[in-house]
Amino acid sequence: MEKIGIIMNGVTGRMGTNQHLDRSIVSIRKSGGVRLRNGSTVQPEPILVGRNPDKLQGLAVRFGIEHWSTDLDECLSDPANRIYFDAQATNLRKASVQAAIAAGKDVYCEKPLTPTFEEAMELASAAADAGVKCGIVQDKLFLPGLIKLKQVIRSGFLGRILSVRGEFGYWVFEGDLQPAQRPSWNYRKEDGGGIILDMFPHWQYLLENLFGTVERVSCIATTHIPTRIDENGNTYGATADDAVYATFELENDVLVQMNSSWCTRVNRDDLLILQVDGTDGSAVAGLRDCKVQHRSTTPRAVWNPDAADTNAYRENWQSVPSTGPYENAFKVQWEMFLRHVLQDDPFPHDFLQAARGVQLVDAGMRSSAERRWIDIPALVTVS
Amino acid sequence: MEKIGIIMNGVTGRMGTNQHLDRSIVSIRKSGGVRLRNGSTVQPEPILVGRNPDKLQGLAVRFGIEHWSTDLDECLSDPANRIYFDAQATNLRKASVQAAIAAGKDVYCEKPLTPTFEEAMELASAAADAGVKCGIVQDKLFLPGLIKLKQVIRSGFLGRILSVRGEFGYWVFEGDLQPAQRPSWNYRKEDGGGIILDMFPHWQYLLENLFGTVERVSCIATTHIPTRIDENGNTYGATADDAVYATFELENDVLVQMNSSWCTRVNRDDLLILQVDGTDGSAVAGLRDCKVQHRSTTPRAVWNPDAADTNAYRENWQSVPSTGPYENAFKVQWEMFLRHVLQDDPFPHDFLQAARGVQLVDAGMRSSAERRWIDIPALVTVS
Amino acid sequence: MEKIGIIMNGVTGRMGTNQHLDRSIVSIRKSGGVRLRNGSTVQPEPILVGRNPDKLQGLAVRFGIEHWSTDLDECLSDPANRIYFDAQATNLRKASVQAAIAAGKDVYCEKPLTPTFEEAMELASAAADAGVKCGIVQDKLFLPGLIKLKQVIRSGFLGRILSVRGEFGYWVFEGDLQPAQRPSWNYRKEDGGGIILDMFPHWQYLLENLFGTVERVSCIATTHIPTRIDENGNTYGATADDAVYATFELENDVLVQMNSSWCTRVNRDDLLILQVDGTDGSAVAGLRDCKVQHRSTTPRAVWNPDAADTNAYRENWQSVPSTGPYENAFKVQWEMFLRHVLQDDPFPHDFLQAARGVQLVDAGMRSSAERRWIDIPALVTVS
Amino acid sequence: MEKIGIIMNGVTGRMGTNQHLDRSIVSIRKSGGVRLRNGSTVQPEPILVGRNPDKLQGLAVRFGIEHWSTDLDECLSDPANRIYFDAQATNLRKASVQAAIAAGKDVYCEKPLTPTFEEAMELASAAADAGVKCGIVQDKLFLPGLIKLKQVIRSGFLGRILSVRGEFGYWVFEGDLQPAQRPSWNYRKEDGGGIILDMFPHWQYLLENLFGTVERVSCIATTHIPTRIDENGNTYGATADDAVYATFELENDVLVQMNSSWCTRVNRDDLLILQVDGTDGSAVAGLRDCKVQHRSTTPRAVWNPDAADTNAYRENWQSVPSTGPYENAFKVQWEMFLRHVLQDDPFPHDFLQAARGVQLVDAGMRSSAERRWIDIPALVTVS
Repeated sequence: MEKIGIIMNGVTGRMGTNQHLDRSIVSIRKSGGVRLRNGSTVQPEPILVGRNPDKLQGLAVRFGIEHWSTDLDECLSDPANRIYFDAQATNLRKASVQAAIAAGKDVYCEKPLTPTFEEAMELASAAADAGVKCGIVQDKLFLPGLIKLKQVIRSGFLGRILSVRGEFGYWVFEGDLQPAQRPSWNYRKEDGGGIILDMFPHWQYLLENLFGTVERVSCIATTHIPTRIDENGNTYGATADDAVYATFELENDVLVQMNSSWCTRVNRDDLLILQVDGTDGSAVAGLRDCKVQHRSTTPRAVWNPDAADTNAYRENWQSVPSTGPYENAFKVQWEMFLRHVLQDDPFPHDFLQAARGVQLVDAGMRSSAERRWIDIPALVTVS
Repeated sequence: MEKIGIIMNGVTGRMGTNQHLDRSIVSIRKSGGVRLRNGSTVQPEPILVGRNPDKLQGLAVRFGIEHWSTDLDECLSDPANRIYFDAQATNLRKASVQAAIAAGKDVYCEKPLTPTFEEAMELASAAADAGVKCGIVQDKLFLPGLIKLKQVIRSGFLGRILSVRGEFGYWVFEGDLQPAQRPSWNYRKEDGGGIILDMFPHWQYLLENLFGTVERVSCIATTHIPTRIDENGNTYGATADDAVYATFELENDVLVQMNSSWCTRVNRDDLLILQVDGTDGSAVAGLRDCKVQHRSTTPRAVWNPDAADTNAYRENWQSVPSTGPYENAFKVQWEMFLRHVLQDDPFPHDFLQAARGVQLVDAGMRSSAERRWIDIPALVTVS
Repeated sequence: MEKIGIIMNGVTGRMGTNQHLDRSIVSIRKSGGVRLRNGSTVQPEPILVGRNPDKLQGLAVRFGIEHWSTDLDECLSDPANRIYFDAQATNLRKASVQAAIAAGKDVYCEKPLTPTFEEAMELASAAADAGVKCGIVQDKLFLPGLIKLKQVIRSGFLGRILSVRGEFGYWVFEGDLQPAQRPSWNYRKEDGGGIILDMFPHWQYLLENLFGTVERVSCIATTHIPTRIDENGNTYGATADDAVYATFELENDVLVQMNSSWCTRVNRDDLLILQVDGTDGSAVAGLRDCKVQHRSTTPRAVWNPDAADTNAYRENWQSVPSTGPYENAFKVQWEMFLRHVLQDDPFPHDFLQAARGVQLVDAGMRSSAERRWIDIPALVTVS
Repeated sequence: MEKIGIIMNGVTGRMGTNQHLDRSIVSIRKSGGVRLRNGSTVQPEPILVGRNPDKLQGLAVRFGIEHWSTDLDECLSDPANRIYFDAQATNLRKASVQAAIAAGKDVYCEKPLTPTFEEAMELASAAADAGVKCGIVQDKLFLPGLIKLKQVIRSGFLGRILSVRGEFGYWVFEGDLQPAQRPSWNYRKEDGGGIILDMFPHWQYLLENLFGTVERVSCIATTHIPTRIDENGNTYGATADDAVYATFELENDVLVQMNSSWCTRVNRDDLLILQVDGTDGSAVAGLRDCKVQHRSTTPRAVWNPDAADTNAYRENWQSVPSTGPYENAFKVQWEMFLRHVLQDDPFPHDFLQAARGVQLVDAGMRSSAERRWIDIPALVTVS
């Protein structure tokens, strides 16, 4: 069986280990590799790269992986390693990716690609100039609930889409009565924290992929909880935004209200909910489920606050059945990227898309700081 | 028993007939009148005023009312009629109210008081100058769900309030498959239609009463459905806004997202839902019910889209029990206004408050047209 | 890996074997030892001590433990054994603990520390004089239901606490129709039996930890069932109290009614229930669960015995969700004590606390015998 | 048909009008009067007496009663009026009852008979000396739940009764968020308020009737909520006890814990619950229902807080079925008293019993004030 070497840099973190290593690459290896159009299969051969040899060896043993290294350059010099994957902290990513591009590797990265839009565009140009393939993780596209929503949209059920309401979030504990369920750096701007930086890259690709290009944003970010308690029981000041209330204007007059908050208690069926209203019907999607209501089955609501309403509004929706089983979203995208590299299948999630995510982060931060609408210019394809 | 004459102008419409005549004044008459502190009772004696004698007579017969007239001036000249009530179309209100003030009547009006802020302030000044009492309908304050929410807030359950999410609306049918459930003038700007003009006065007094002064607004209004079919089966162009997506900044850093739409299908427990998140707890209120969740009973949500979430988020809320029977909201406010007139009880819902509602309408329209945040200046008490 | 020797004396009984050996020390060993702040881990190395070599060897084999002995003095002379643990019968404890203190061991004991308050204070002084660390088992503090109750109290949900009602107990069978589910010595005063001696140490630390210092007690103990049948089928006279009805006055005017009985049939959700009423809310805690009701969600009860009550009182309470997983309460406290010994972490459950438990036992017995209130003087820290 | 005149003094209050007039005397009249052993029936002929002629006339009209008067002496001088009933405020009762006794009337009274024990004994002696019949309202004995409990006790199901736990109470609102559901005088000692004075008369006759003579009491009363808001919205200081935690010793070593509180949130099936544990079985009674558990169906509880308890304790009880219909408790006792007067049927609820109720109030107040047990001496039958 053919093999393809993959340098995996920074998979010692929770996300890297669980999603990219265990449930993607290791899982693909267990299932016998990636099947290609020509009938052959190719087995991914990961090389774990990082700074802590103990951790790397531990992972290698745990997952039955032969190779690990603390020397990235050496790994890049080996032509068997065709792919470079990066899940390091965001501020470390650019230099390593540049080295990989220079070494002619095809490159795949966690989001956000870089802390700023300019850097993201630099990498997009570099990849284009070098003629290497590139990709960015956009896993939410492959969650069952959003796959179902996409399917509903493509079926024409909704008619012309008018508006979208998104609610994301839950209560992240302050750390006094019980430990917080997110790391403290999430709440410190100086450490790369903040909910705009964390979530706007997701909203960018979800909105664009489902509803169309984002043309304008107005948002207001805030730090609702100014003081928290960290992993060691110490009180610290929160310097990053923990909630952002945003309005997006999309092409074709689609209006989107999108709230993201770590300071809200959940009165929803899921931690992320998107409601889409169209001329012919509406859909409500969560992470795993999606339900719809057609104009022909819409109950007749009458605004008469004086009397009890006899409509049971929540019961008038119909579930979109699963067509799955649905594989892990990260694994699905890994297989797509491998087929892109191995047999030139299309892979739209490239560095230009990555740059659009960071572009929306920049625009959101400016909109909130200056309390005004910010236009999102189109990106010309990198030359 | 003592009597008090009330000129009721414009109660031939649905709202006027049902809420102000039948369920308020007629209901008060049936229960024996308004009881005062001194032990006596006063019976309201309505005079129905309008342009269509057939309709007026019909109502008078139906509700056992002695007097009706098409001559407002004559009614105003009778000193037995101490109160003038106006439920005419908004653009007709100003002249009639001015005449009533000039005649020394105490005046009570449906909302919005006038189409523009300047006119509303004119009437507020006129009433103050004449030394007559004045009031504006703010019925939503007296709905059971919002009374319960107010009680929760006053109990201190929520701690410091951080944010509010409001969703109002439902699908108003276009008129092709089934008749629309709202009159067509609602969708024509030139006839006083539009959802900002209809709903912002309500949001103004609800937000101010529950959470604090509104200091700034940014919103985007639109006409999602450009063509509708009217009461006579004729197609017409909708010129007024049928949805508005708004963000309000309140005093004390409270942030409010408030969506109002006649083009959304309802996936909520009620046609109006307010979710309030505070440091110590959260509340979700509808028109009749309210439920709460305290920080000590908040489930521990973990963001792991890869796995099914085991929390049943909707079940972790506790209902606020009813403390009443709750009377019709309009009737409650009518009795308050009558006691204000008869024995000088406090009545905070005056024309200055009415003007604040129209002020927010103006600001919202400008914000949407100019795509920018608009500040809401405080109103000095009229001299 | 570093090791710490622990002499475990008296773990051949049910409690000692199951809770202290199997689910605490053996469980800690299986999970790789106790993790310290400096990153290292320390493995507990138990030496089982007792009088019956067969039983000791059996336990050693069953749990994979290398060392056991019938010679306590020899074990105490080995400097590798830093900790002495005692789960013997209460009347045997004092002499062994004194020997351990004399040998410079840190000492951890089952409750009650000694049969009398004076002996408990002697041991507290001896430990203080010798400069060794000491601890008493107070496992109920670490049960999920009471952890949740503590969290509710700390969250401020209850406001000022007014009163506590405690119900502990169940029916212990007499032995005629079916065997008793507790050993017969529990019902013989001369063998250390009695429900005051068994439960008042628990109530002391629970009340003090949750609600404040116990200042005064009035109780009435009795022997409801005078004759029972023992493990061998022989009838015996019960000489110890099998139920005690107590009232405690705590600091800040908190009043506590606390019933403990082995002669009651359970009409409760759990064998121990505490209801706490405060100005702002109430809580009801059992061993694993806790539920709350806020003043804003309290139903309006009306005392009208003539009519059926329409309130469903039991349904107006909201569960406090788990924040766990919750570890075995004994294991949690063992790890705390080991970290106290190994890296000086705070450990408030010392012999002075143990003495306060016995002090309440003494006061309860006198109150019942003399039918009067007994004050509980504060303990000065031992010199 | 024969008639019997009944002077009803003080039935203009809520309790007097609803329970004694409407649901008792008027109801007996509607059903055709009281049937006697000799086959005849006697119709009660009430004369309403009070100070407010308007109210009296209003009641007379409403209930179709011929006679009312503001002159008690005149009514007492009419020999057709054989019975005098008194439901005035407690402090007004003694003088009127003395006058009725002097006039040779049979006398029936609301509880408490008088504010102090000495006065109650005076009336008991006066009635005995005059040879008139006398009775005190003890309505709780005739509630369905307590009738069922009495039936269970008499059946021998419980064996020897060991202990009783009583919980009475609910949360009486302070008046800030919603109006209180009890009148403000209940919370002012100077106006006859206080929960000992209100409830101990009930506990006295319930305990004695169900379980045996009360021999000793220890209780602690308190004012948990020191400030409340009255019917007019004014803040006032609460001077009376709003909760009392009591222990009673009864004959035959029965121990009773009885909590009464207006400051507790209800986690019970009813506002009053009595749990009775006996050697052979247990019973739990509320106002309307009663359930039992026999020793042969008692689940085997094991105290192992470490593991979840698999017993569903609440489900192991069996309901006592109704044998009714159950008549209004007040009416039942009225018919008993009428038969006592008319045909000498036994009526154990006499003034000596009334005095025992007041005696327990006195003892309870002293016990709480002096923090000690108070003996309840037996009452010798009045000479």
